[in-house]
Amino acid sequence: MVVDKPDLEGRVAILRIHSRDVKLGDDVELVKVARSTPGFVGADLANLVNEAALRAVREGREAVSQADFRASIEKVIAGLEKKNRLINPKEREIVAYHETGHALVAYYTPGADPVEKISIVPRGMSALGYTLQLPVEDRYLMTQNELYGKIDVLLGGRAAEKLIFDQISTGAANDLSRATDIAKRMITDYGMSEKFSNVTLPYRRESTFLGQENYALQREYSEKTQQYIDEETARIIAERYKQVQNLLESKQSILKSVAQKLLEAEVIEAEDFQKILSELDASVPIN
Amino acid sequence: MVVDKPDLEGRVAILRIHSRDVKLGDDVELVKVARSTPGFVGADLANLVNEAALRAVREGREAVSQADFRASIEKVIAGLEKKNRLINPKEREIVAYHETGHALVAYYTPGADPVEKISIVPRGMSALGYTLQLPVEDRYLMTQNELYGKIDVLLGGRAAEKLIFDQISTGAANDLSRATDIAKRMITDYGMSEKFSNVTLPYRRESTFLGQENYALQREYSEKTQQYIDEETARIIAERYKQVQNLLESKQSILKSVAQKLLEAEVIEAEDFQKILSELDASVPIN
Amino acid sequence: MVVDKPDLEGRVAILRIHSRDVKLGDDVELVKVARSTPGFVGADLANLVNEAALRAVREGREAVSQADFRASIEKVIAGLEKKNRLINPKEREIVAYHETGHALVAYYTPGADPVEKISIVPRGMSALGYTLQLPVEDRYLMTQNELYGKIDVLLGGRAAEKLIFDQISTGAANDLSRATDIAKRMITDYGMSEKFSNVTLPYRRESTFLGQENYALQREYSEKTQQYIDEETARIIAERYKQVQNLLESKQSILKSVAQKLLEAEVIEAEDFQKILSELDASVPIN
Amino acid sequence: MVVDKPDLEGRVAILRIHSRDVKLGDDVELVKVARSTPGFVGADLANLVNEAALRAVREGREAVSQADFRASIEKVIAGLEKKNRLINPKEREIVAYHETGHALVAYYTPGADPVEKISIVPRGMSALGYTLQLPVEDRYLMTQNELYGKIDVLLGGRAAEKLIFDQISTGAANDLSRATDIAKRMITDYGMSEKFSNVTLPYRRESTFLGQENYALQREYSEKTQQYIDEETARIIAERYKQVQNLLESKQSILKSVAQKLLEAEVIEAEDFQKILSELDASVPIN
Amino acid sequence: MVVDKPDLEGRVAILRIHSRDVKLGDDVELVKVARSTPGFVGADLANLVNEAALRAVREGREAVSQADFRASIEKVIAGLEKKNRLINPKEREIVAYHETGHALVAYYTPGADPVEKISIVPRGMSALGYTLQLPVEDRYLMTQNELYGKIDVLLGGRAAEKLIFDQISTGAANDLSRATDIAKRMITDYGMSEKFSNVTLPYRRESTFLGQENYALQREYSEKTQQYIDEETARIIAERYKQVQNLLESKQSILKSVAQKLLEAEVIEAEDFQKILSELDASVPIN
Amino acid sequence: MVVDKPDLEGRVAILRIHSRDVKLGDDVELVKVARSTPGFVGADLANLVNEAALRAVREGREAVSQADFRASIEKVIAGLEKKNRLINPKEREIVAYHETGHALVAYYTPGADPVEKISIVPRGMSALGYTLQLPVEDRYLMTQNELYGKIDVLLGGRAAEKLIFDQISTGAANDLSRATDIAKRMITDYGMSEKFSNVTLPYRRESTFLGQENYALQREYSEKTQQYIDEETARIIAERYKQVQNLLESKQSILKSVAQKLLEAEVIEAEDFQKILSELDASVPIN
Repeated sequence: MVVDKPDLEGRVAILRIHSRDVKLGDDVELVKVARSTPGFVGADLANLVNEAALRAVREGREAVSQADFRASIEKVIAGLEKKNRLINPKEREIVAYHETGHALVAYYTPGADPVEKISIVPRGMSALGYTLQLPVEDRYLMTQNELYGKIDVLLGGRAAEKLIFDQISTGAANDLSRATDIAKRMITDYGMSEKFSNVTLPYRRESTFLGQENYALQREYSEKTQQYIDEETARIIAERYKQVQNLLESKQSILKSVAQKLLEAEVIEAEDFQKILSELDASVPIN
Repeated sequence: MVVDKPDLEGRVAILRIHSRDVKLGDDVELVKVARSTPGFVGADLANLVNEAALRAVREGREAVSQADFRASIEKVIAGLEKKNRLINPKEREIVAYHETGHALVAYYTPGADPVEKISIVPRGMSALGYTLQLPVEDRYLMTQNELYGKIDVLLGGRAAEKLIFDQISTGAANDLSRATDIAKRMITDYGMSEKFSNVTLPYRRESTFLGQENYALQREYSEKTQQYIDEETARIIAERYKQVQNLLESKQSILKSVAQKLLEAEVIEAEDFQKILSELDASVPIN
Repeated sequence: MVVDKPDLEGRVAILRIHSRDVKLGDDVELVKVARSTPGFVGADLANLVNEAALRAVREGREAVSQADFRASIEKVIAGLEKKNRLINPKEREIVAYHETGHALVAYYTPGADPVEKISIVPRGMSALGYTLQLPVEDRYLMTQNELYGKIDVLLGGRAAEKLIFDQISTGAANDLSRATDIAKRMITDYGMSEKFSNVTLPYRRESTFLGQENYALQREYSEKTQQYIDEETARIIAERYKQVQNLLESKQSILKSVAQKLLEAEVIEAEDFQKILSELDASVPIN
Repeated sequence: MVVDKPDLEGRVAILRIHSRDVKLGDDVELVKVARSTPGFVGADLANLVNEAALRAVREGREAVSQADFRASIEKVIAGLEKKNRLINPKEREIVAYHETGHALVAYYTPGADPVEKISIVPRGMSALGYTLQLPVEDRYLMTQNELYGKIDVLLGGRAAEKLIFDQISTGAANDLSRATDIAKRMITDYGMSEKFSNVTLPYRRESTFLGQENYALQREYSEKTQQYIDEETARIIAERYKQVQNLLESKQSILKSVAQKLLEAEVIEAEDFQKILSELDASVPIN
Repeated sequence: MVVDKPDLEGRVAILRIHSRDVKLGDDVELVKVARSTPGFVGADLANLVNEAALRAVREGREAVSQADFRASIEKVIAGLEKKNRLINPKEREIVAYHETGHALVAYYTPGADPVEKISIVPRGMSALGYTLQLPVEDRYLMTQNELYGKIDVLLGGRAAEKLIFDQISTGAANDLSRATDIAKRMITDYGMSEKFSNVTLPYRRESTFLGQENYALQREYSEKTQQYIDEETARIIAERYKQVQNLLESKQSILKSVAQKLLEAEVIEAEDFQKILSELDASVPIN
Repeated sequence: MVVDKPDLEGRVAILRIHSRDVKLGDDVELVKVARSTPGFVGADLANLVNEAALRAVREGREAVSQADFRASIEKVIAGLEKKNRLINPKEREIVAYHETGHALVAYYTPGADPVEKISIVPRGMSALGYTLQLPVEDRYLMTQNELYGKIDVLLGGRAAEKLIFDQISTGAANDLSRATDIAKRMITDYGMSEKFSNVTLPYRRESTFLGQENYALQREYSEKTQQYIDEETARIIAERYKQVQNLLESKQSILKSVAQKLLEAEVIEAEDFQKILSELDASVPIN
């Protein structure tokens, strides 16, 4: 089971509740807002309505518009905009290729969530750039191939860096951590490895003690099994990375074109991304 | 020793106590209610009587009927009904085959508890579907074969997914966890492995500390023994899974027929299930 | 050192104290009561006198009789009688052979405590049946052979199940846990293994922390030594189990006769047991 | 460094302080009392003076005599006398040989503390018998040979049991624990092993936490080193045990004579022990 | 992601805030101050302004000068000056070569931060000397080569000691600790090893418990993986050390000249260092 | 970095502060006092001034003399004098050779701190004798050879015992612990091993928890690395011990002469030691 957050209808209902005392503009479609906020819990949605209302007030409008919601969603997702931050041009170029790597892999991976936006406008302290994917619908099950797809997209950033600059950087640390986690859970939680096929390997990472988080890792399996998990995780990541490398190598000129456009425009939205790709690549994407 | 909950007579007595101040309809047979609630403790039974009484009130009836009890039992077991939840058709199909897999293995496993109901009406947040088995009587001992039977039924869901879609999903995670646990306890608690035949391998998973659960796993045996437990567990699960796969392959057309019926009807009750099976399969089930 | 509880004289003295304000019948011999309660601590004996007194009151007698004490001893040992509990006939048969297995091994093991009673009247929630052994005298030392004898009697239950039904069940879990513990202590506490002959291997299982039990297992030896303990324990249990199997196989017809009698009578007392055995088996028991 | 308790002079001084308000008889020599109480700390000596004074009062004497001190020393060392305790004759015989084993090894081990008393009068709950050794003087250093001697004396009990009855019992558990501890400290604390010659292998067994003892064992060395410690400890004990076995075998008739005398007399004091031994064995003991 | 501290603009803003109530001289350029304080957090910058203001007051000036800021930066970075401390001449010579080692490696490593100052004026208790590097700009990403460069500079001190005196000392302990840490994080956090390429190996070093730091190290990987990390870390350091040794050997005469100058002057500033190097070495440095 | 205590000048300053209200005799040279107290922290020096003042008062003098300081230093270093303690002559001889062993190794080890005093006057409870070395100056760095020298001096005691008596004793336990610690830190903290050359192997031995010391050892490296540390430590100690044995064997007659003098005089001061050695050994010591 992957999801324990409100689904589309649940989010619509929650948004409706928090919007009761807010004047909504005629263009507002809460269903669209809900569709853009998969993974949001109640508090996130309350926060979102608040931000949208504040934005309308700041700009002297009476009613909250759809644009207010769109801007607030971005704020919550990637942190406050901060356009005036300095970044050295070399780093900026690395970031552009890194994000384009994510986006292209998402584009070419069947079943991956479509790219909503690519940005190299730095936001907050820790994100030099980001690629936003928008799930088409709520999901309750993930097949093994869909899990591989998620890993592929995460590895796309580093693979692009390596392909273009023949250097890798610390910028991929967070992507690698998330990809590693998915690969590990395929083995421990979903019984998707060869040696422990259909077996779960339970462990606990956190427990609360006296109101404090207590990171005592408890494994209910042996050291040698952990060793298998480590090696199998590394094998999965290596396999997927090779896959991703091959994909990006075969699309190298497209990668360069999109990255150049991104360096110029700083932001590429979903529609533009689709348009650029269909112009660059005659082959119809599977997604 | 497996059971430390009230037995049939105990449950009848408990039900009687909690029903004292409730008007029961003429059709109510508390023995039948008790027979349908193996594993229920006192609090569950009190809750059950309450729910049944509330249902009667809601529907404007004075006396609680047997149907009120039946509906309340389902509610307690699988969570509140929530028919209006969205689910994508591909997922729905996977779930239907998954549940039918459980049900068919239960049907063909001698000694397994008979299937009471199969449902793909989503209930609560975490159960896309469920298969309900009803024990014929209270049990105080489990033989090794009966334990294998329990594992088989749990593995039936994933085996069906694999057989039909040649893909596996995260939907089996909870089944696998329970099957793994039974296999592990055969080795550690019941002395049913070859290497540690008639030996117990004690460990503790939880202890309470300052009123908080403390998940410090304590093993009274060596790492190498844990390794044996891991490998023996994997061997048992692999063996049972192969068994289950063979069974479902040989019954593939029945699997498809039942799953199609389930996709249409959403729910199949015990009697219908028996009827469908006896029509589809001339061979008399052993159960 | 094995014993830290009151010895025979100590128990007589304790019984005398708690009986001061109780009217004892002429037939009461506290020495006999003490002889039947090895292992009882002060609180158990106080409880016993109370129960015996209550029983006399309930039955409208002024003085407490020896029979009151006998009944109370059984209550304390095996839990309150609960004759009306349901049990399926197959389970009942397994239990009968299981208990007869214990009793026969005790009968044929030189130095084992003699069988006082075999019962398949279910008592409490967790005991389907029981075999009561009565020590002839208090013991302060146990020789290696006497420890083996204790293990043998504990393994007799499962060995009988296996011999008669060619199936094993979860019903032996507690026996196996106790047998494992004795075998383990022979190695760790009594220096009775080959590799660690005359060496102790200290570990602590429990400590108290802030008034809570804290199950931090502390070993003062290496993993490889723990591995030796695990394997040596398994070897001892396997060796003893084979011994017990051979014994029961050679006495199979006696096993069946006694178990059948037990299924009919539900309870067999010490004298009857001796009588049945001497009729069935010409060979004089060593005990 | 082995000693951190008051030395002979220190004990004399402490005894003098606690005797200030006690009338001492003319025969009392506190130096002799101090000589009999090596290892006593201040509280033990205070307790001793108290006991001696109480004994004099109980027997209606005004002054405390040397005999009062002697009796009190025994009480503190081996627990309160309890002559009326029951013990089975077989156990009593085992105990007699066990204690004589200790005493003979002490007698024949150069440098071992001389035997002060052998007793099979049961004292307290846990001591079936005891052998008391009296150090000639306070020691600040122990050579490797002296440490071996201590181990030998501790192993003498079990070796005698094995030699005479060809059976070993649980009665040696405490001796083995102490012998194991000395052997282990030779390796970890005194650098007396071959592999870790002149190296210390630090570990901590106890620490205090919130006023509670906390038995978290902390080793500053590897598992493999712990394995070496385990095996080397076992090797030392095995070597010493063989030595002790050879000694007792060569003195078997003396062992039997002394044990028989002990079974008759229940107690053998230092002078009698010396006399018996010199009569039985022409060879002059080295001690 | 490496940086979570204020960037250049952020530092300028913070400096401006803390300087509001301070009279700044005409020569003060806060941008220059910010450029010299990469890694400073808000509190450091507040402290810096304070120190600069105090210095002006102490020297009887009304306005804070750029020189006040420069002196305060040094104070914060390397501790209070303490010229009067004694040091033996042999140690002083070792320190001079050690610091020159750092500086030369920084000079010859492409991309390394340029040397701002070399000093053997002892500061505080723990620093016998130091080499200050000044980053040209804020960095958000580090490439693998840049990480190697950081390690090289840290190893330069010990390599110089070894080359000149054929002896190594405890003086490099802190350098080695930092170099080891970078090498380790390349493997665990940045996926830059061969075996665990693109995989993260998560562990936690500290957690806070009841307001106290709790150094319970939690690894989410196996012992064997830790072993790989240890060996791979050692391999990286060994490889880099050899590189650094070769570099310093090839520049041995330059090393000696600079170290001699340092022994005479005690301090060499950035400009002098550049001038000395360009005179000594015709080859243009890459940096 | 080895030192974090006040240096010579710092100690002079501290002594001056604590002596402000004390009348110092004309012969007092605080610089000499400071030179004799390397390693003393502020509290030790305060204590020292106090003791010296008390001594002057006890002896009826108004001013504190240099001799008062000398006597107080000894008190603080080796505990209160206790001349009247008993010791057996055999132990006394062992101690004399043990201390002379330390002193001779110090004498013949280049760079070792010179011997200030050898004493077999027992002080306090735990020191049977001691050898006092006086550092010529404060040190901030230790070369690898100087660390070996420290180990050698510590091993000199046991080596002398072995050479003269062909027996080793528990008396060297503390020396071995300190020598082991230095060898271990060469590997873990100073990067001075072959396998982990220039790498640090961090671990923590103590942390404070709720105001209590918490001895949870945390290693940031693998078991196999700990095994290497254990074996390498043992190798270093074995190598150094052999070195020390060879040295003492070649100086055996000198060892005997000095030890005999020590047994007669009980104490040998620095000047006498130098004089005796230069008479006994024509070769000029390197120190």
